[in-house]
Amino acid sequence: MAELTAEAQPLEGSEATAILERARAVVDPEMRAAVDSLPGSLRRIARYHFGWEHADGTPADGSAGKAIRPALVLTAAGALGGSRARERAVRAAVAVELVHNFTLLHDDVMDRDPTRRHRPTAWTVFGDADAILAGNALQALALRLFAEDPHPASAQAAVRLTECVIELCAGQHVDTAMELRSPTDVSLAEVLTMAEAKTGALLGCACALGALYAGADHEDVEALDAFGRQAGLAFQLIDDVIGIWGDPHRTGKPAGADLAARKKSLPVVAALTSGTPASAELAELYALPCVEGDQEAVERIALAVERAGGRDWAQVEAADRMARAMQELSRAVPEPESAGGLLALAEFVTRRSS
Amino acid sequence: MAELTAEAQPLEGSEATAILERARAVVDPEMRAAVDSLPGSLRRIARYHFGWEHADGTPADGSAGKAIRPALVLTAAGALGGSRARERAVRAAVAVELVHNFTLLHDDVMDRDPTRRHRPTAWTVFGDADAILAGNALQALALRLFAEDPHPASAQAAVRLTECVIELCAGQHVDTAMELRSPTDVSLAEVLTMAEAKTGALLGCACALGALYAGADHEDVEALDAFGRQAGLAFQLIDDVIGIWGDPHRTGKPAGADLAARKKSLPVVAALTSGTPASAELAELYALPCVEGDQEAVERIALAVERAGGRDWAQVEAADRMARAMQELSRAVPEPESAGGLLALAEFVTRRSS
Repeated sequence: MAELTAEAQPLEGSEATAILERARAVVDPEMRAAVDSLPGSLRRIARYHFGWEHADGTPADGSAGKAIRPALVLTAAGALGGSRARERAVRAAVAVELVHNFTLLHDDVMDRDPTRRHRPTAWTVFGDADAILAGNALQALALRLFAEDPHPASAQAAVRLTECVIELCAGQHVDTAMELRSPTDVSLAEVLTMAEAKTGALLGCACALGALYAGADHEDVEALDAFGRQAGLAFQLIDDVIGIWGDPHRTGKPAGADLAARKKSLPVVAALTSGTPASAELAELYALPCVEGDQEAVERIALAVERAGGRDWAQVEAADRMARAMQELSRAVPEPESAGGLLALAEFVTRRSS
Repeated sequence: MAELTAEAQPLEGSEATAILERARAVVDPEMRAAVDSLPGSLRRIARYHFGWEHADGTPADGSAGKAIRPALVLTAAGALGGSRARERAVRAAVAVELVHNFTLLHDDVMDRDPTRRHRPTAWTVFGDADAILAGNALQALALRLFAEDPHPASAQAAVRLTECVIELCAGQHVDTAMELRSPTDVSLAEVLTMAEAKTGALLGCACALGALYAGADHEDVEALDAFGRQAGLAFQLIDDVIGIWGDPHRTGKPAGADLAARKKSLPVVAALTSGTPASAELAELYALPCVEGDQEAVERIALAVERAGGRDWAQVEAADRMARAMQELSRAVPEPESAGGLLALAEFVTRRSS
């Protein structure tokens, strides 16, 4: 786990930061052009969501996110096809980011999430219907980009992205359905599959699209998909660990916020299904209603998750997923100098907000 | 107006019916194959929506609608490119129907409509989130069909369909926003634009896609788009007239249901903006809350709409739109024997449920 939880080494961290910055620089203008092609009403909602405008339509300098997915597309294309391939993959990178934001707009409505990127979510400002409609328009925009792209891989890439959209929707279905079930009725396999669908699928698709745009063969495309999926799962595992034991000063959320919300996160489900005495205690604690501000109760739950092995399991599992990701990457991109960018991005995402 | 409100002539009616039946026969298996490729959870919601399954997953023999849009795609392809073009346009026909059903699933959630095709809507059975997710998956499926289609027009067709999706979403945005406004604040131009976006755009797109798949030139593609749009507007105008003055025995809805719901339908907005004494009276009546079962009040409103010229305007406007549709059609397809099928479909839709 050392490579995941240790402080970012300056060199690696700055390599990922430089890659992300460079991706944003080429993707941002195309993203804005795509969004600005929408009719006024939908454009306004999308521009608000991306942080480019305030709710009243005045310009904002908010960030539209870290652009990890576009960076994965471009870096994968570069790793397998050099700088020419990377340059030609910009539309694919924009398409992936548009799909990501389409799902964010919709998921926030379904999950009733009030904030996104430190601002009120679009549905809280414009209403459910408009947030959903803006999301639909972003899906259409993403697929229009492929249909307009003369690149020989664009049709194959569009097929892959639509399949990913379907997997994302299936993952979100499982997630919303799971909300209604008792935590003790949920299996670890189910939450892992759900996390792969909701988080791994699009990261994998981003890498696969980059490979497709580099003209890679089927095997390498699949290896890069697996690389992104496994890194995505590692990210989700670490993110769930941080959601319980993360430093509130660094996460910006109260300690144990996911526990107070009784989330069926990966460490919790691992703990609940561990069959240890602590897992029975945890089940009882998790069944109690949450009393706001009762930090002592949250700490008792966190301790029970830890004693039932949830924390160790998540960290070992994350390390294992990262190892698998590295293995897939080295299969498709054996030269370390070519694989370096993707490696740096994978380590960056699994270390983010820790 | 005679050709719109008169009883269907047996020959013409049966021609449209035969075209629709033939379209369903080739489109249905492809639709089912596309939907059955979805993961289990989403497949079940979609199969329920299409009327192929009951809510408990047992088979149902419900109809998935009249397949007017697929029939327009296939008939337009046939009109401009003969039977070979029609045969090759099946995927495009399926894609249009998938998009239509994606918007139905979403619109029913947003409009809180309880019934669709005489059954409870998907959101009432599976919840809002699942109905939205199933709709998203149908959009993805539609665009996957184009990405997988080796036909030389498939990319252009995909661009056109994504632009139509965006117009549909913009139309639905205007519609939901209009619900919150006073009826007297709404202009006739606004409701006409909204009706064109919500109803005309996809009918026009269906015809244009058929033309694209027949290898038609830009001008003919645009003419067929305009034909479908104008026929769609004529349909909406007639549908709105029926929503006020239709025979309850034939519509299956109580007389004046749209008035009781205070809908801002085209004849009502035309009447409200006519500047006649009756329009002021109508504005007062429309501002009163609806008392359930007060059929006398509904009849007074219907009379006010009629006296303010709303009924005449809608019928003249519908006839005018149909004339424009015919003009566009004869420009692209001058031979009457080739244009006959599209003409029959246009007359069928503008006469439906009357």
